[in-house]
Formats: sequence, structure tokens, C-alpha cells
Amino acid sequence: LSERLGAEVVLANEAFQWTGSYKFRGASNVAKSVPNAAIITASSGNFGQAMAFSCKLAGKACTVVMPANAARVKIDSVRSYGATVDLVDTKVVRREDRVAALKAANPEAYVASAFDDTLVIQGNASLGRELAAINARGGKRFDAILAPIGGGGLCAGIVSGLRAAGDQTPVWAVEPAMANDFVQSLAAKRIVIQDQEPQTIADGARTRSVGKHNWEILHDSLAGAIEVSEDDIRESVRICFALANVKAEPTGAVALAALLADPARFRGKRVCCVVTGGNVDPAVYLSIIGGS
Amino acid sequence: LSERLGAEVVLANEAFQWTGSYKFRGASNVAKSVPNAAIITASSGNFGQAMAFSCKLAGKACTVVMPANAARVKIDSVRSYGATVDLVDTKVVRREDRVAALKAANPEAYVASAFDDTLVIQGNASLGRELAAINARGGKRFDAILAPIGGGGLCAGIVSGLRAAGDQTPVWAVEPAMANDFVQSLAAKRIVIQDQEPQTIADGARTRSVGKHNWEILHDSLAGAIEVSEDDIRESVRICFALANVKAEPTGAVALAALLADPARFRGKRVCCVVTGGNVDPAVYLSIIGGS
Repeated sequence: LSERLGAEVVLANEAFQWTGSYKFRGASNVAKSVPNAAIITASSGNFGQAMAFSCKLAGKACTVVMPANAARVKIDSVRSYGATVDLVDTKVVRREDRVAALKAANPEAYVASAFDDTLVIQGNASLGRELAAINARGGKRFDAILAPIGGGGLCAGIVSGLRAAGDQTPVWAVEPAMANDFVQSLAAKRIVIQDQEPQTIADGARTRSVGKHNWEILHDSLAGAIEVSEDDIRESVRICFALANVKAEPTGAVALAALLADPARFRGKRVCCVVTGGNVDPAVYLSIIGGS
Repeated sequence: LSERLGAEVVLANEAFQWTGSYKFRGASNVAKSVPNAAIITASSGNFGQAMAFSCKLAGKACTVVMPANAARVKIDSVRSYGATVDLVDTKVVRREDRVAALKAANPEAYVASAFDDTLVIQGNASLGRELAAINARGGKRFDAILAPIGGGGLCAGIVSGLRAAGDQTPVWAVEPAMANDFVQSLAAKRIVIQDQEPQTIADGARTRSVGKHNWEILHDSLAGAIEVSEDDIRESVRICFALANVKAEPTGAVALAALLADPARFRGKRVCCVVTGGNVDPAVYLSIIGGS
């Protein structure tokens, strides 16, 4: 892996986190921290599974609003953790409107954002602290830590956790070029919001903008942002499979893709790439691995 | 994963071992221990890669005899570790004859068996010691440890390492039914040798018999042997993919397949299944994951 990429690569593999992605860090912190007995969230992806399982562990009720056309495997997964799945036809009703209606019907419930919530940042900070602890072991330190950016909750959490532990390792956000609202935001020095959700294969990065809480942390604490192409992301999934025996979902391979997109920047450096998760529809995965 | 299988399942994942399989444990012990400056071995699979890399680390010359029709990706992998690949047309020359010829040409070289070598058992024993150390941590102990059996070097190593650490956890050997020479051997109380290499999809278990050194250890130290069908193995690969985000090669999924073949035996128990490796030809993997 390191030879192929020209850098000393370490993968921080969150595909083995509970529910298969880093989202459990933030979701479990929300479920444990809020006093409410019920939690409502909208998610077609990893946050829904993570919140469903977190509520099960915390003994709370959980409702996950999902589009009616979401992958069957994801709907079944959320249900398997004991949550109520509320399917909406997103052509007729917007997800946020459905969440508002559920909240109106159950005012005691907590509405959880998948990324723009200080409790989510705080939960994700545990990853930053873990990486700082690895650096503190006395071996060779990371020259850089790379993580994908969508809503920004992961990057905000990592940098918060590192700095709280007194670790100044540079953190880079890696963003699909076709969903580059954060790169645009850094240039504009304010949050840039896309008109529509960009349809990158990295579905965890299909956010229209970063969250406000995250922006406050990220706008002056990152080393920078790197854009990657869809082809880089696909090739990164294949590299994880072939050279590291790691099953990464497309979003999970975004950080590593930066070493393909900008190989000179990290040449010979010791780089930690966060693999954010491994939950991928088999058909999507097969089409990537079978391609070239 | 545990709910699906009705047992509390822990995967000991050797797909992240150096060169992607447990074979590095034995191979590196051979390369470090023998005084010879050159090592010759015959392997179309994981032992070849493991020995090539082990020799690179030990500063020794390595020749791996492989069939000319071996998967390109495996030949390339052995070469990438700096070893010499010696391709033979196995229809014309038997691999063992070619090894003998190479040894005659270079009498100073050590000929390494992939499994029937006390140094290989000694290397694999490190896994048994690691599992014993997990048991000794004070948490819930494993009720059983399951590992696949082909030549028997892994099972012999695990049981040796456990017992040397004073750990009496039962160890079960899991064997593809179409390659069940070890099950037959246990019944006959002597090593049974198949006429031909059985063509199970678990290519790491395509041995005609267990090794003599391994048999001495295994014949009276295992809890027993469990046979699994080819369908069980394929389903186990899919379960690793879907419910654990683990990329297992077919041989790597054999131990877990025992929970499909004989679910009542381990119901509710805490079971450690050894995933022996993750190196699988993409086309083979895709056909398994895409099947059902």
C-alpha cells in the first residue's frame, strides 16, 4: 500500500466501529447526553444506523426518516437495531418537513442532526484523542491526518480531539471535487451552500454545505482541503481492497484518494487516512471492484 | 454478526497480517531461524508471498516455485517482495521435482514446507499465545476457538501456543467436506492421504493430507473437526462482507462456516473464528458476493 502511494500510509479503519462507520461516535454521544426519551433524525445512511443502535443501547425510542427509495439493506439495518423507520416520498414531502411534523406530534423528542451538533463533534473528538494517543506512544508520529469532509462533523471532531490532547498534527479535509462546497467556502471565507445535493459516489459527502458549528472550528484550524475526482475515489476503493484487504465504502476511501490526486504533497511522509466506514451496497461495490 | 449466527462471534482477522494472511507467522520464523542464505519453497498461494517478504526482511534470497497458470496477481505479488518466481508447467514437471532440482543446483539453500515444519508450527503458535493473552485479560473467555485445517500447521500452532500459555480453550478444526482427509484421519487414527488435491473453493485447504509434525500434535489435542460444504463457505464469505465489513478469502471464511454447518453446537457460546487471510482474486470474490 505504502509503495503504491509513495507515502507511509496508516489506515484508521472505522469500518469496524459499531454499526460499521465512525457515525456511532457522534450518535452514541447524542443518545447518552440528551435527557429526551425519544430521538428523531433524518438519514438514509450511516447516521441512521448509528443512531438506531445508540438509542437501543441507551434505552430510548428512535425514529429515522428515510426516503422511500433508500436501499432495502439500509432500511432493514435500521429496523434490525429496533428503530422505527418512517419512509417518505421525497418527491412529495421534504425530509426536514417530515421531521418537523414528527417533532410537532411528539414535542418531547430530540431532533438530531447528523453533523451540525456540538454533541456530534464531541463524540467524533474521541477519534482525534485516539490518534493523539497513537502519536504519544513514542513511535514515529503522523506527519498528517486526512479525513473526508461532507457536513464537516468528522473533521471538526478530529481536530478538536487532537488539539484538546495537545497534538498539533496537521489535519487535511478531503472533498469530492463534484461536491466541493467546503473548498469554495475556504476560498470565500464563509459557508458556501450548493443549490442541490451533489451526486458524488461518496454518498456520505452529499451535503449542500458544512454545518455552522463545524465551520466555526474548521475555517482556521485545518492545514487545508484537497479535492479528489470520482475516478480517484473509485481507484482508492480498489486499492483498499487489493493492497490492504480493507472493505471501504466510497466515502470511506475519499481520504486515501488524496494520495492519488496530489501525490507530491505527501511523498515520503507518514500519513494517517481515516477510512470512515465500510457499509456499501454490494452491487455498487462489485461495480467498482470489477471496474478498472 | 452474532445475531445472525446465534453465537457471540469474535473474528481474529489475519487478513491484516503482513502479506495478508497468517502464513507470515510461520514463514518469518523460518526465515529468521535457519542459517541458510537462500530459501526455496513451492507455493501458489499465501505461503509464497509470506516467504518472499520474510526473506526480504531477513536479507535472504528466495525462490518460489509456482505453476505457470497461477493467478497473475499472485505471481506479481511474490515478485514485488523481491523473490525469484520459478514458473513450472505442472503438466510436464511436478512442483516437488522442480524444487528438488533447484536444491541440487544450490545445495546451500533451505527447502521450506508451507506447513510440515516445526519452525512453521512455532511461528503459528504466536497466534495461540495472542488468543491466550486475550483470554487472560479478565473479560469473558472464549468457549471455543475455530480455525480451518488444510495441512494442519495453523491448528497445530494455535493449540501449541495456547497450551504453552496454560490455556485449555477447546480448539476445533474446520475442514471443507470435499477435502475432508483430516476428518477421515481422525476416524482412522492415522494420516489419510487423498489421491488428488481436492478442488474446494477454499484453496488454502487443497492439501492431500495433513503434515506429519502437525498430526503428532493434532491427533489428540483438538476438541474435534467439523465439515463444511462449499455453499457454507461461500455464504460465510458473504456474511463477513455484509455483517462485519471483513474481506475474507474463501479459506479465510471456513472457520466461520462451521457456525452455519453446525449452529446448535455453539449456540450462545463465545466463539473465536480465525479469518486466515484476505487475498482473493477479485473475479472469484465478485462471483461469491454477487451470488446468493
